[in-house]
Amino acid sequence: MSHGRGIFVTLEGGEGTGKTTVIGKLKDYLENRSVPHIVTREPGGIEIAEKIREVILNPSHTAMDPRTEALLYAASRSQHLAEKVEPALAEGKLVLCDRFVDSSLVYQGYARGIGMDEVWSINQFAIHDRMPQLTFYLDIEPEVGLARIAANRNREVNRLDLEDLSFHHKVREGYLQLVERFSDRIVVIDASQTLENVERDIIRSLEERILKDF
Amino acid sequence: MSHGRGIFVTLEGGEGTGKTTVIGKLKDYLENRSVPHIVTREPGGIEIAEKIREVILNPSHTAMDPRTEALLYAASRSQHLAEKVEPALAEGKLVLCDRFVDSSLVYQGYARGIGMDEVWSINQFAIHDRMPQLTFYLDIEPEVGLARIAANRNREVNRLDLEDLSFHHKVREGYLQLVERFSDRIVVIDASQTLENVERDIIRSLEERILKDF
Repeated sequence: MSHGRGIFVTLEGGEGTGKTTVIGKLKDYLENRSVPHIVTREPGGIEIAEKIREVILNPSHTAMDPRTEALLYAASRSQHLAEKVEPALAEGKLVLCDRFVDSSLVYQGYARGIGMDEVWSINQFAIHDRMPQLTFYLDIEPEVGLARIAANRNREVNRLDLEDLSFHHKVREGYLQLVERFSDRIVVIDASQTLENVERDIIRSLEERILKDF
Repeated sequence: MSHGRGIFVTLEGGEGTGKTTVIGKLKDYLENRSVPHIVTREPGGIEIAEKIREVILNPSHTAMDPRTEALLYAASRSQHLAEKVEPALAEGKLVLCDRFVDSSLVYQGYARGIGMDEVWSINQFAIHDRMPQLTFYLDIEPEVGLARIAANRNREVNRLDLEDLSFHHKVREGYLQLVERFSDRIVVIDASQTLENVERDIIRSLEERILKDF
């Protein structure tokens, strides 16, 4: 696979980090700065990837094996990459992707217990050496993130949120392990700040590490 | 994953080896000998695996990436294994499966050029150490196999068959590499013999290596 001249940037994080809002702001920023770009997330409107996602999410599939699920996510990733990300990179664009391989490592590999190295092996196959040059990990204490979600929905943190708390802590632990392992690639952003400050920190890092070349 | 007390046997081979007919005969044999067994092949009526196969075979999907395809086959295998093969093995049955991981290594890894080791890595994830105890590889010269198919269909070998010949040779090369690599597991059966003799050779080997314990 030939690697295009574009720049591949991903955003990662748990619940309540404001990731979706921040991505919208980053898109505005790239437009104002006239940086050729696309913003995407899997399955990203790619027909085969959408069909795969339907298989994963079909509620009549009561007994999906966790390994089957991990392989299907990897298959969807492979197709989204081949049809959407690689062509944009080949055109020299900046590709900003909402979640990528790190999410699978953390959610399925670490938090669900399949094992990071095992999930890495199938994703390595799926992405064929195409790793992001830069990843922003929006870090927040799960208690703070969940409280923020609850506040946005005008409700108390409920029993279900609290039962899930240990899962969200595992997700954060997983991300922090990746930060250590891929310290050159992953930039930690303090997501407990205001969204304006989160956006400012990301743009500053983007300018320093990437956009000086555009 | 716990490994049941059953016996897992697979059949492999290229075109024109008579594999399907032989499997029917073996099923009769196991019934007559009162060996508890199932005969299966992927996706094997497993709903999730069937849905995955639909995604693979949908002709409107014109641009499926070869890696996506390999991951989808691995996902289908994982689910068929979890839902059908493992439960039968746990009940102590002999499971006879028409094609398994070797087919992916040979067809996608070797003949289509993705690489055997790469395809092995995702299949290792899919099968989670569940390898067959015994595999019969029905070996035939591609020219002989294709001529046999043509004869069965009452037609001449056509241009398309001949164009494919180099592909079928690659398939055979791939299988012969696996035979060398997994010589303890894979038994080569000369499929240029009559079907009666193919059946006789397989049953003899089954009796010696497996059925003495039943």
